[in-house]
Amino acid sequence: MPTKRTLAEELASRQRAISVAEFFERNRQILGFDNPQRSLLTTVKEATDNALDACEEARTLPDILVEIHRLAEDRFLVAVEDNGPGILRREVPNVFGRLLYGSRFHANRQARGQQGIGISAAVLYAGLTTATPTHVLSKVEENPAAYEVDILLDTAKNQPRILREDARAWDRPHGTRVELTLKGRYQKGRQSPYEYLRGTAIVNPHARLTLLEPDGTRTTWERVSAELPPLPREIPPHPHGLELGELDQRLHQTRSTTLGQFLAEDLSGLSRRAVTEVLDKSGVGPRTAPGSVNGEAVERLLAALKAVTLAPPSSDCLSPIGPLLIKRGLKNVLGTLRPEFYAPPVTRSPRVHAGCPFIVEVGLVYGGDLPSDQPIQLLRFANRVPLLFQQGACAITSTVSGIDWRRYGLEQKSGALPVGPMVLLVHVASTKIPYTSEAKEAVAETDEIAKEIGLAVQAAARSLKVHLSRSVRRSFAEEKFRIIQRILPRIAEKASAMARGPVPDLTRVITRIMDVVSVETQGGGAAPDEAGPKGSLTLVNYTDRKRRLEVFLELPLEALGEGFRSSPEPLELQRELGRVSFPLAELAPNERLEIALEWPRGVRIDPDDIDVYVAGIDEAHLLGADPLPGDWEVRLPAALVEAAEAAESPATPGEELEEVDYDAAERKEPVASDED
Amino acid sequence: MPTKRTLAEELASRQRAISVAEFFERNRQILGFDNPQRSLLTTVKEATDNALDACEEARTLPDILVEIHRLAEDRFLVAVEDNGPGILRREVPNVFGRLLYGSRFHANRQARGQQGIGISAAVLYAGLTTATPTHVLSKVEENPAAYEVDILLDTAKNQPRILREDARAWDRPHGTRVELTLKGRYQKGRQSPYEYLRGTAIVNPHARLTLLEPDGTRTTWERVSAELPPLPREIPPHPHGLELGELDQRLHQTRSTTLGQFLAEDLSGLSRRAVTEVLDKSGVGPRTAPGSVNGEAVERLLAALKAVTLAPPSSDCLSPIGPLLIKRGLKNVLGTLRPEFYAPPVTRSPRVHAGCPFIVEVGLVYGGDLPSDQPIQLLRFANRVPLLFQQGACAITSTVSGIDWRRYGLEQKSGALPVGPMVLLVHVASTKIPYTSEAKEAVAETDEIAKEIGLAVQAAARSLKVHLSRSVRRSFAEEKFRIIQRILPRIAEKASAMARGPVPDLTRVITRIMDVVSVETQGGGAAPDEAGPKGSLTLVNYTDRKRRLEVFLELPLEALGEGFRSSPEPLELQRELGRVSFPLAELAPNERLEIALEWPRGVRIDPDDIDVYVAGIDEAHLLGADPLPGDWEVRLPAALVEAAEAAESPATPGEELEEVDYDAAERKEPVASDED
Repeated sequence: MPTKRTLAEELASRQRAISVAEFFERNRQILGFDNPQRSLLTTVKEATDNALDACEEARTLPDILVEIHRLAEDRFLVAVEDNGPGILRREVPNVFGRLLYGSRFHANRQARGQQGIGISAAVLYAGLTTATPTHVLSKVEENPAAYEVDILLDTAKNQPRILREDARAWDRPHGTRVELTLKGRYQKGRQSPYEYLRGTAIVNPHARLTLLEPDGTRTTWERVSAELPPLPREIPPHPHGLELGELDQRLHQTRSTTLGQFLAEDLSGLSRRAVTEVLDKSGVGPRTAPGSVNGEAVERLLAALKAVTLAPPSSDCLSPIGPLLIKRGLKNVLGTLRPEFYAPPVTRSPRVHAGCPFIVEVGLVYGGDLPSDQPIQLLRFANRVPLLFQQGACAITSTVSGIDWRRYGLEQKSGALPVGPMVLLVHVASTKIPYTSEAKEAVAETDEIAKEIGLAVQAAARSLKVHLSRSVRRSFAEEKFRIIQRILPRIAEKASAMARGPVPDLTRVITRIMDVVSVETQGGGAAPDEAGPKGSLTLVNYTDRKRRLEVFLELPLEALGEGFRSSPEPLELQRELGRVSFPLAELAPNERLEIALEWPRGVRIDPDDIDVYVAGIDEAHLLGADPLPGDWEVRLPAALVEAAEAAESPATPGEELEEVDYDAAERKEPVASDED
Repeated sequence: MPTKRTLAEELASRQRAISVAEFFERNRQILGFDNPQRSLLTTVKEATDNALDACEEARTLPDILVEIHRLAEDRFLVAVEDNGPGILRREVPNVFGRLLYGSRFHANRQARGQQGIGISAAVLYAGLTTATPTHVLSKVEENPAAYEVDILLDTAKNQPRILREDARAWDRPHGTRVELTLKGRYQKGRQSPYEYLRGTAIVNPHARLTLLEPDGTRTTWERVSAELPPLPREIPPHPHGLELGELDQRLHQTRSTTLGQFLAEDLSGLSRRAVTEVLDKSGVGPRTAPGSVNGEAVERLLAALKAVTLAPPSSDCLSPIGPLLIKRGLKNVLGTLRPEFYAPPVTRSPRVHAGCPFIVEVGLVYGGDLPSDQPIQLLRFANRVPLLFQQGACAITSTVSGIDWRRYGLEQKSGALPVGPMVLLVHVASTKIPYTSEAKEAVAETDEIAKEIGLAVQAAARSLKVHLSRSVRRSFAEEKFRIIQRILPRIAEKASAMARGPVPDLTRVITRIMDVVSVETQGGGAAPDEAGPKGSLTLVNYTDRKRRLEVFLELPLEALGEGFRSSPEPLELQRELGRVSFPLAELAPNERLEIALEWPRGVRIDPDDIDVYVAGIDEAHLLGADPLPGDWEVRLPAALVEAAEAAESPATPGEELEEVDYDAAERKEPVASDED
């Protein structure tokens, strides 16, 4: 028998199937169990995310307790207890003791857990490292007793092994408590359970979270909103990003009996008109059985789906954070640090990747006390979960690093995160986040998502650029103002002394040279019993023309609470956005307009916190205020905004063309240099 | 019926099992199919890695052809053909059409493929994006005909679906060809199939690789070594890093009938003495049935296993690249760039993570033409496979970034890769690489592996530091030399003119002040017919003492080929390492030693390529050469080297204490400054 023969047979004899639990046991790092520190955090995270999902599905305001007890140097007991709906007795073993088992994998809507892996992986890891079963206690409302069970995961079979089960009394009406004993390492600071829960609290203001640390420290993040985010709705997949093989599969697996029905019900975004158009273009009859569409016809169908205009994906399967919460979240992260600039948070319209809708949101703060000699701080969130590990593997990081930040005034080594006093928050919400691994710590490099992240971050960066170039312009204008007011009267005095004439009135001359409308702001407010005006705004028309101006203010939310007054009265008051506008005012040359402001009792407003915008005058002629930013026009029809954006922004992120010409700004000489 | 009741039931009713193929279909980014560009590369990579593994298992020098044909704008045909042993007909469908099916998962030895996922994932992706089956052609030597089959992967069942199969003639004696039709994007440059194959060629010099690109370009990397790397041997797991639950599992699953047998055969690294010691310490009898060891006894057993001295893990289950190949690989990457310094490659002794042996190897080049204003180039390899994606997620990257490179003379923002003219190659070889995801592009943050990477990189960095501080010292010495030779004679002339005496002989004075042995090197070699000496080495003893010196040279390998001569004759010639040493020479003050070198016919050697080392004199007194580096003593017993290392290197990477005091070097004033 020749050797080669035995070889091929020999090689074949080694081939065998691998159980999914064996696979993950051997590759537990893939699930986030790389090392004791991360394993402990992953365990906390999986249990907490499950608890939050369960509470939200049950429409209960989450109240979650996380306890971490040290049993030995490297052995911990992690307990996570929630007030969720509880789990039926028959489901408990599978939910906790079987990988790839869950309720959210097949549902096409936003959830933290999607894979049916996380908590079972923690049970697997606990058993692997300490040979100790996981204890679960759960109670559903309709049952007077709670159910408790000790579980190990049998990796050869990927099945729960029940060691003990019982019924017992529990004083909660409903809820679940899971206790895992595992090898771990506890640390505070970066990538700690504390940081994870703090991040979770930021983007889940409706949750109350308590952490008990091994050293006995107990921290509670109280809920700051009693409103549950709307429950995302399940929707069928959107045709955008649908692959040929996927469409083929869906056609052969659908319960729809006709192709017309399939297009209308098994896919989202197709109006009746669109269905007709797709059928016409593809040349397949509406009454054809979906299962009989094959080969080339499927390709024609897909081409037609990509050619017709579809409704944008519905966003009610998603739960974005929203601009208000993003701003509040950033304030929370910053603590006592005071940045110089908050960019208006960006929330993009929903888009689709691989048939799944998603939304990208971005917040940006800059300057002030933030450290300027370090890479920016990047806060990554996916489906309201903070991502603490694998920053370098994440599409959020690579997209942010891929933008040329030098255009926006930040220092940057090519391909790295920019360096500067900036915190950038990016949230991706989707019915399916494409994570790079089962540990769900980084978003994969999907073209569509990377593009949206790029556009959203660049929109925020543009605000930053405007702010920075405005600062440059403003400092020139202020310099000019200062010089004119100091130099011109001296020249006039000198000239009249030489001519032995009277000193002329320079008001008109100064006005002509100044050529600006100046705005001055005063804040104030103090003791709770103090009444009367607390702030003011003074506009002076230092131009030689009559000006028709509109004034808009953006203020901290508390400034517009009950008790806010102004004279003149506001034209429009948007309390939830902190915005006020005033009626059109006419100012003759050298005329002045005063707006008096009164804050609610006990509120104190810093003048720096009052952003003033003035419309009706070019920004070159405006001092101490900014022109009205684009995002005040949010009420324009979405289609118009989209069209404007499409025209403005390039197809590929990072290819944007506009640039600040700082050199040009520097080349401009202040007016007074003519004097020498 | 209260609402809560329906809710718990309702939630329970949504729970279900998820097929592993469904899971990966929905999460294909985890397998490396994030976007069309990466998907194309992953496909090439999985097929090529399989081909290399198959050839090596069959002890055949691999000859692999990779063809990429463009079928449409975003549709490609990838064909990979090898001269491996072929696959038996009955195994072909499962190997290509079923996830978690393979021969290497349960084998405890180094291989590229480990998971039984890769190529089936490519078949899944191809079907998903183009609805086209994968075509496989395979022939084993004993069968006169080849077998061909068209396969799709049925995701609901995770089973191959055979669309067509046949026998056909194939002119190869044995081998496999797989053809996949998939959606992709082809690009050259970074992260391209070209770069992947080039990287593969670097660390697999025994393979012949050919790439046919869509534009018709054909590139062949010829094999540069006809020697197959030794086939790694399968070994049982090593007790280091074994977890409690794992030991418990193994005790209950073993075929060994006694605990003594279990310890000796189911684990590696235990001598008979160690077995006895473990049994004594744990207090469990040697004849106990392994399955009857439970609970606390398992903990005692594990504690005993961790307490006794074990043999280090055997390395014959591993296939490291080796110092020679690392150096050659780096030369290959650099192309025409000429660095100023090659650090001696570092190969660490085997260590263990989670019971699996691994070895870390590092190569480092610095300076010269390399770009100095960019982050260093980091080349990552795992089990002889280049890692092109997810650099940021990789323990190699984070460990390298975590080292304080400013100590070694490089610029660095904290936590980022250092900036400087450097290429760093890191190879991790293991029976099981803990990848961060199934796409196998990044090594997870495992403590043991991170520590070894840290120690290996720091060893190379220390060579760099020595080189750099030597450069600083040398430039001071050269400056001193120049100044003394220029200034002293002038002082002498001036002084003798003033004294109207004769100019004194300054040789002894210069010698005393110089206090160095200087070495000058000449290269040369030219036309193939030119004969006679082509290089030379001149040593001058500018010290006032007799010196006994040994000279060692490190040369490009070709310099020591057939035809190399020297006068005096070498003491020792290590052709395979490019090293020559010469007999001890005695030099009186001001005496000079000439060594004439003659290269093989047709060889040309640059003087920069001759590294000169001199022993017998402190490096402070050496100009133009370096003291003998530690790694020439490689023949020391490994235990001694280890002990020395353990004493020298700290437990945690990055905590090393030694530092170059550049400031001190700068504070030293050149001698001649006394003159002013």
